[in-house]
Amino acid sequence: MNSVTNGQKPPKRVGQRGPAEHERRDQIISSANHHFLQVGYRRTSVADLARAIGFSTAYIYKFFDSKRAIGEAICAMTLREVDDPLWRIAEGTGSAEARLGQVFKALAEGGRDLFFNERQLHDIVAVALEERWSAIEEHLETLTQIIRRIVLDGREAGEFERKTPIDEVCLAILKTMAVFANPLLLKLELNRLEASTGAVARLVLRSLAP
Amino acid sequence: MNSVTNGQKPPKRVGQRGPAEHERRDQIISSANHHFLQVGYRRTSVADLARAIGFSTAYIYKFFDSKRAIGEAICAMTLREVDDPLWRIAEGTGSAEARLGQVFKALAEGGRDLFFNERQLHDIVAVALEERWSAIEEHLETLTQIIRRIVLDGREAGEFERKTPIDEVCLAILKTMAVFANPLLLKLELNRLEASTGAVARLVLRSLAP
Repeated sequence: MNSVTNGQKPPKRVGQRGPAEHERRDQIISSANHHFLQVGYRRTSVADLARAIGFSTAYIYKFFDSKRAIGEAICAMTLREVDDPLWRIAEGTGSAEARLGQVFKALAEGGRDLFFNERQLHDIVAVALEERWSAIEEHLETLTQIIRRIVLDGREAGEFERKTPIDEVCLAILKTMAVFANPLLLKLELNRLEASTGAVARLVLRSLAP
Repeated sequence: MNSVTNGQKPPKRVGQRGPAEHERRDQIISSANHHFLQVGYRRTSVADLARAIGFSTAYIYKFFDSKRAIGEAICAMTLREVDDPLWRIAEGTGSAEARLGQVFKALAEGGRDLFFNERQLHDIVAVALEERWSAIEEHLETLTQIIRRIVLDGREAGEFERKTPIDEVCLAILKTMAVFANPLLLKLELNRLEASTGAVARLVLRSLAP
C-alpha cells in the first residue's frame, strides 16, 4: 500500500493479473465460490476449478495468479455482503441507539447466513481466518468506521456520553462484536443468537448512556 | 453425568481408568504436558509419550484410556491455572469495580502466558478448541460464576446498577471477555493487550454504572 498517489487509493488487486475485464473476472469469482461451497476450497486445485467451471487453466491465470488470489477475491466479495447492509443501517434514519442495536443483529445474522451451511463453517472461511487474509483486516476497519459513524451521530444528538475518547469507545465496541464477527465464535452462538446479540448490544448501549 | 447420587457430583474422570493413585496420575499429566509442549500433541502417540516419559504404555492406559483423555486432563489443569487467580481476585477485597477490571487483565495475561510459546499457540490448545473439550465449557461456566460474584457484590455495595436482570448482565460480560478468553482471538491482541483489555473493561464498567 505504498503506491498511493494524489490521495487516492489504488484498486485492491492482491495477486490478480490482467486487464480490467470486470465482468469475466466477476463470473470466475462467482462460479469459483459456488464450486468451493460444494466441493471444498482445500481439496480443489486451480485445474479442478477450471474444469468444473468451464474455463481453461490459462484463462483463469490471466485474472488470478493463484488459488489463494481467487479465495481472497471471494472473501472480499462475501465480506462486502456483510458490510453493505451494516453501512445502510449506519447511514439510515432512526436514533443512534436503534441503529447500533440493528448493527449487532445484522452482523450476526449476515455472518450466519453467509459463512455457514447447515451449521458447518464453509472451509474457505476457516482458511481465510487461519491465513489471516487481508480482506478480514479491511472488514474490521469497515466495522470500526460503521461504529464510529453511529457513535458520533449519537453524541451529536445527545443520546450518548461524550467524555470517553472516541477512539477508545470504537475500539471497545469493536471488541464486543468479536463474538459475532468471528465465524469460529459465531458458530458457538448459533443456537442463541437473538439472546446473545441482544444482551451484548444492550450492555454496549448502557455503556454509552450520557 | 447421569450417575449423580445423594446430590453429590461424582469426580470428573472422562476417559480415565484405575484407582485413585493421584500422585502418579498427576505425574503423568505433568510429564505429558511438558512433552506435548516440546514435540506437539498431534504428532505424539501414546506409545511415543510412554517412551519419552519413562512409563510403559500399559501403565499409562491404567490411568487414561486414550491420548485425548490425557489431553483433556492437561486442558482442565491448565484452565484451573487461569481460573484460580481469577477466583482469588473475585473473592478479594477492594471495590467490585477494581476487581472486575483486574479480572479482564488477569484473564488476558494468564491466557497469554499459558497458551502461547513465543506467540505460537500450543497445538494442544488448538485441538481442544476444535474438538470442544469439556474443560472449555467448565471454564466458561467458572468465568460466569466469577463475573456473577463481582457484579452481585457491586450491586450490594451500590457501585453497580440493579435494574438489568443479573443473568443477562453476566452473559453479556462473558461475551465481552471472549476476545481475551478464546486463544485464537487472544493471539490477535497480543501486541496491544493492555489497550484492549483496558478499553473493554472500562466499557463494561460504564455499562454497570448506577
